[in-house]
Amino acid sequence: MIYGEKNIENPIRWGMVGGGIGSQIGYIHRSAALRDFNFDLVAGAFDIDPERGKAFGKNLHVDPERCYPDYQTMFAEEAKREDGVQAVSIATPNFTHYTIAKAALEAGLHVYLEKPMCFTTEEALDLEETVKKTGKIMFVSYGYAGHQMIEQAREMIANGDLGKIRIVNMQFAHGGNNVAVEKGAASQAWRVDPKKAGPAFSMGDVGTHLVYLAEAMMPDMKIKRLMCSKQSFVEGRQLEDNAMTIMEYDNGAVGYIWSSGVNAGELFGERFRIVGEKASIAWDAEHPNFLSYEVQGEAPRVLARGTGYIYDGAKADDRIGAGHPEGLFESWSNLYTKFAKAIDKCEKGEEIDFWYPDVHAGVLGVKWVEKCVESGNNDSAWVSYEEA
Amino acid sequence: MIYGEKNIENPIRWGMVGGGIGSQIGYIHRSAALRDFNFDLVAGAFDIDPERGKAFGKNLHVDPERCYPDYQTMFAEEAKREDGVQAVSIATPNFTHYTIAKAALEAGLHVYLEKPMCFTTEEALDLEETVKKTGKIMFVSYGYAGHQMIEQAREMIANGDLGKIRIVNMQFAHGGNNVAVEKGAASQAWRVDPKKAGPAFSMGDVGTHLVYLAEAMMPDMKIKRLMCSKQSFVEGRQLEDNAMTIMEYDNGAVGYIWSSGVNAGELFGERFRIVGEKASIAWDAEHPNFLSYEVQGEAPRVLARGTGYIYDGAKADDRIGAGHPEGLFESWSNLYTKFAKAIDKCEKGEEIDFWYPDVHAGVLGVKWVEKCVESGNNDSAWVSYEEA
Amino acid sequence: MIYGEKNIENPIRWGMVGGGIGSQIGYIHRSAALRDFNFDLVAGAFDIDPERGKAFGKNLHVDPERCYPDYQTMFAEEAKREDGVQAVSIATPNFTHYTIAKAALEAGLHVYLEKPMCFTTEEALDLEETVKKTGKIMFVSYGYAGHQMIEQAREMIANGDLGKIRIVNMQFAHGGNNVAVEKGAASQAWRVDPKKAGPAFSMGDVGTHLVYLAEAMMPDMKIKRLMCSKQSFVEGRQLEDNAMTIMEYDNGAVGYIWSSGVNAGELFGERFRIVGEKASIAWDAEHPNFLSYEVQGEAPRVLARGTGYIYDGAKADDRIGAGHPEGLFESWSNLYTKFAKAIDKCEKGEEIDFWYPDVHAGVLGVKWVEKCVESGNNDSAWVSYEEA
Amino acid sequence: MIYGEKNIENPIRWGMVGGGIGSQIGYIHRSAALRDFNFDLVAGAFDIDPERGKAFGKNLHVDPERCYPDYQTMFAEEAKREDGVQAVSIATPNFTHYTIAKAALEAGLHVYLEKPMCFTTEEALDLEETVKKTGKIMFVSYGYAGHQMIEQAREMIANGDLGKIRIVNMQFAHGGNNVAVEKGAASQAWRVDPKKAGPAFSMGDVGTHLVYLAEAMMPDMKIKRLMCSKQSFVEGRQLEDNAMTIMEYDNGAVGYIWSSGVNAGELFGERFRIVGEKASIAWDAEHPNFLSYEVQGEAPRVLARGTGYIYDGAKADDRIGAGHPEGLFESWSNLYTKFAKAIDKCEKGEEIDFWYPDVHAGVLGVKWVEKCVESGNNDSAWVSYEEA
Repeated sequence: MIYGEKNIENPIRWGMVGGGIGSQIGYIHRSAALRDFNFDLVAGAFDIDPERGKAFGKNLHVDPERCYPDYQTMFAEEAKREDGVQAVSIATPNFTHYTIAKAALEAGLHVYLEKPMCFTTEEALDLEETVKKTGKIMFVSYGYAGHQMIEQAREMIANGDLGKIRIVNMQFAHGGNNVAVEKGAASQAWRVDPKKAGPAFSMGDVGTHLVYLAEAMMPDMKIKRLMCSKQSFVEGRQLEDNAMTIMEYDNGAVGYIWSSGVNAGELFGERFRIVGEKASIAWDAEHPNFLSYEVQGEAPRVLARGTGYIYDGAKADDRIGAGHPEGLFESWSNLYTKFAKAIDKCEKGEEIDFWYPDVHAGVLGVKWVEKCVESGNNDSAWVSYEEA
Repeated sequence: MIYGEKNIENPIRWGMVGGGIGSQIGYIHRSAALRDFNFDLVAGAFDIDPERGKAFGKNLHVDPERCYPDYQTMFAEEAKREDGVQAVSIATPNFTHYTIAKAALEAGLHVYLEKPMCFTTEEALDLEETVKKTGKIMFVSYGYAGHQMIEQAREMIANGDLGKIRIVNMQFAHGGNNVAVEKGAASQAWRVDPKKAGPAFSMGDVGTHLVYLAEAMMPDMKIKRLMCSKQSFVEGRQLEDNAMTIMEYDNGAVGYIWSSGVNAGELFGERFRIVGEKASIAWDAEHPNFLSYEVQGEAPRVLARGTGYIYDGAKADDRIGAGHPEGLFESWSNLYTKFAKAIDKCEKGEEIDFWYPDVHAGVLGVKWVEKCVESGNNDSAWVSYEEA
Repeated sequence: MIYGEKNIENPIRWGMVGGGIGSQIGYIHRSAALRDFNFDLVAGAFDIDPERGKAFGKNLHVDPERCYPDYQTMFAEEAKREDGVQAVSIATPNFTHYTIAKAALEAGLHVYLEKPMCFTTEEALDLEETVKKTGKIMFVSYGYAGHQMIEQAREMIANGDLGKIRIVNMQFAHGGNNVAVEKGAASQAWRVDPKKAGPAFSMGDVGTHLVYLAEAMMPDMKIKRLMCSKQSFVEGRQLEDNAMTIMEYDNGAVGYIWSSGVNAGELFGERFRIVGEKASIAWDAEHPNFLSYEVQGEAPRVLARGTGYIYDGAKADDRIGAGHPEGLFESWSNLYTKFAKAIDKCEKGEEIDFWYPDVHAGVLGVKWVEKCVESGNNDSAWVSYEEA
Repeated sequence: MIYGEKNIENPIRWGMVGGGIGSQIGYIHRSAALRDFNFDLVAGAFDIDPERGKAFGKNLHVDPERCYPDYQTMFAEEAKREDGVQAVSIATPNFTHYTIAKAALEAGLHVYLEKPMCFTTEEALDLEETVKKTGKIMFVSYGYAGHQMIEQAREMIANGDLGKIRIVNMQFAHGGNNVAVEKGAASQAWRVDPKKAGPAFSMGDVGTHLVYLAEAMMPDMKIKRLMCSKQSFVEGRQLEDNAMTIMEYDNGAVGYIWSSGVNAGELFGERFRIVGEKASIAWDAEHPNFLSYEVQGEAPRVLARGTGYIYDGAKADDRIGAGHPEGLFESWSNLYTKFAKAIDKCEKGEEIDFWYPDVHAGVLGVKWVEKCVESGNNDSAWVSYEEA
């Protein structure tokens, strides 16, 4: 149970790159980081327009002198201060992620990086290496992983409640891109431009969330190979807006991921079903407080967040008691709490004894997209997938 | 609206092969055929045990003299009578379907054949040829196709309500075979024995239903190629109990079918979603009275059977008024009504101006299984799929 | 499990009064009675137009000579035959029920009577007396009571799975009468005419179904008193189209029934929740194959028809196996099977050892409406309710 | 769309009474107030144990000198400061609400008061008078009213989308008190003690939320009279744990509220359906992002938060985009944003041009409970209900 008291002795001095005025993602980063007093927002390079960024920061109680025109200045200036930022969240367009994250790590900062982490396995491995070298904490923003029922799922699977896992069936398939929304909307245009969005659209945008959820829940299962059938249904779109990926795991399980932006009429469509030898669980991101638990031969049950019968690890993140709906903000808050704790442990030289979406998770997401694209571009042939 | 008056002038003289005591499938064939006075059950070879078959037939008001020890005798004896059977339903184990159906057609009978029609494309094409040669009507028992909301779906698609179809996403994935139920249950054992069940288990048993539903709803879309990843999760099982098939259609659409018997905790799991350019529809066989209709940018709607707003073709089969639940028996009844009408038209030399699960649908089901097996056995490679 | 073999040695010779051409209710009576060979339809007074009735009967394979112009002739003529009807179903307008049913019983026939049985407690008690005097079987057509999950609910309650019952919360509230549909539709007009429909509209039409479901599931609980708030929302309607009734039971439980025809946008709206000390069950007539079972402190479960975990009494009526949807026709079929068995036992002088919607249930329905009307007309005051 | 920038020029200096360590309700007040920089938490009397309160406040970045031992000291000391608190939230046990709220108002503070506001209409009217006299803003904490779909419902009703309202059908019926949870749990014991909880348990605890939701959505409908049937099902409980209330409104509509703590197996059970002449809406507090909209004769629709098709007033509070789930914290945040805006306008002497749960709403809640208790204690007789 969380009552809002901070989880660490001294709040982390925290800054943001991007996430300025009109940014939805910036808002959720701040809401999540600041709600429980684990972070103090003390600096930012919120906007490519310095004045706008300064005005924005002031609104957030940030000292105008610490509202910087760009991330380079911010990292340099903050490094000179005794009370300079310790950690930074990066919420800029995808094509800047790699460069800024690397600079932040090398500036001695802990990093919370929007996904996708970068575009190539090469860059991803370089970031992983940089994390190792600098000894800093890096989180990749897989924001759905903080939902309590994901923790519940992870513990159920670890506990053998489902038996050996056989099938991982996932989809993140919405309809928001069923027509060329990118025409005339700059905010959308970069997402379908290979130069800015990388080699994939839907797979990177939505599919990678599923890849990480699978890893979070089943950390011991490794993909052996995959094949991908991808399409660009909307005329003129260079990147895929629909993809079906089949994966084979090293334990004999199979997986399926449907990534789509053209699933007309579906508002969100992020769902999964994990099938074990004796039971399955199913979850829908639009109804995150519930987890369906279906034991073969028994009546299916719907487990609810915050109740007495779920596992302690899931219960620990409860903020408002069972029955009351929590939402995406609480999922992010849980992840930012982990970020604070991880930084705190890191700075004290303690071992981090909990899971979180780390740089390796980011590597795996980038690799998954890369392998899917490789298969898709090669007539949907099978592609082998040695562990990065 | 159907009120139970027969749809044809003279009821069809009808017999059964198989479907005797303790047969669930026999019961639904009879319930469907007899409810509206379109058929008279006048003969049968209900059981491999002649005495048991005779006793059973008597219970059904069949003249004991017309309860035959086997289908050969039945076809021969009935042919001698002026009032001999005109049509026969075949509800025997899978491995006998081809032989009996062929014999029935050649004996001048119309045939309602349990699925799968047979095991090889060769046999299937031979049956198709036999139908052509004899000029008789043959229905393949795809029992879900008679639900009113399938007709509604077909008409919506034909009418362009969804726009051009892009994605066909289907599953028939239950958990009833998650352990070796075939051990010690003769009634199940033949289903996983390649000699008796043919080259596939789940794909033939459940997957083919989806293949036909897709054809019924989207008659103009043809599969160009497919790939299939199949598994036998239960130890010792020779045939697949899980399969994922990806299909590419000639109009650029893609399809996905998940066939499974190991989806633990799922009672039935027959569902589909058809995605068009502007809207999608979704249906669940456990809730057949409803069809979800989701137009991009609008609030999703749940259409209900029997209401004023659905298409006339769907409404025509209403037996009890909107709101009251109909079930699988009504779906079968609708198909048997078509069977009666088709026979009636056939015998009068009239053209049949409605769709039904004909021998060609049976051919396509057999072919789909064969192609899936070919791909699955060839490391899940793509297999091209010229129209049979 | 039911496979369609008849349940009694000799089928009951059966006739119908009403239910002729274009009658939905007639169709479901016939479908239910005839499906399992327990009844032979041998006579009928199907229509007030004798010729139309004869043509209709012929379609149903009834000997034209036994298609009578009216029920009086039918009862008289059939009585003269050695093979005359033994039982009759009455599906005529409400205001004729009492007279025809009484005549049938006095003619020595078993009766399956459409609801409402009659309009006054006096008539109802007279019918009950007549049943007692004649020793015949009488069923009142509470067609939802035959659903397997109602039997399951009854057995769960009897078994104490819910603990002592505290609250009975029911509704049958659809929107089909939200405007004056009776204007210009003769088929609807009589339903809101006090002279023809009796003292109530929605309460009699839909509310009484709930009253009987409560009795079927909780036979030991008796209403002590009730109060009713009723409204006629549609202008010009003389009878109530909405009513809320609160009931107190002799065991300390309370009940609530919402009867309505003006619940705009709701197609059917027949649902209930039974709350016990430790658990509740909930059911929705549009999804009759399922029963929600919610134990306090545990995850709620959805029980499904036909599965291994439900009670034997519920399982016994399974016609098609778990997962496949059954519908209203199966519910009626189950009731007609009971009708056949009850007649068979009655004629053999055996005791009837199962529950069914008997004449006393009809009495209680009529009485409930009468008491509700009394309260509603008396400023919604409480009305005491001694057991009839 | 909300991006977290504050909505007013100068954040409100804000303090809390109660809501200290281990308080769930304190946490949600703070989360809601602080997330968007509209409030600064500068003082508090968080705990009856001064040291514990000081430690707690320190954790929240409150100056230890402004962590007071009790509310009297806090109001007195803060009044002396130029930067003293302007507003206070009161999250103490129910029986202290009236006294502290009155003191706060008289100390010149704006008040956000936990519900129930107080126990008697007399106290309630006194608070209303005090608000009028002091000219301060007072919010009563009806936390569900801030959900976007409640605003959507309000606007739909105002816009005539449902037609004239006929039926208001509501329930807040959970199972958490189905046994004597108050035995041995001090935190629960006061809730069923008439001296501390007032004259009602479930009706005050949960029922009043529905009363306010009804007022928020249908501000023009006034209750004319009501009757209430209440029970104490759990042995030894002095206050009711279940109540059914029927209400008649001045426009001819009827209402029904089921308040319960003994609805075994139900986790939350807060739901309503508003029925108009031509359409209904339905909402479930466990799934607050959705609103069912059912037009008679059309397929029912499920409206979702944040989409393009909902009303602007509802859209305005969107924090994360359609599809992503928001929860109870966002509902409270929306209300606290209104609190900030109302205070800002109040202090500037501007008119408040939006609705919020004001002191009069609190009066109506107290009155509703009082009238229900009066009816319940008088054999569930009708009680007239002139507007307070």
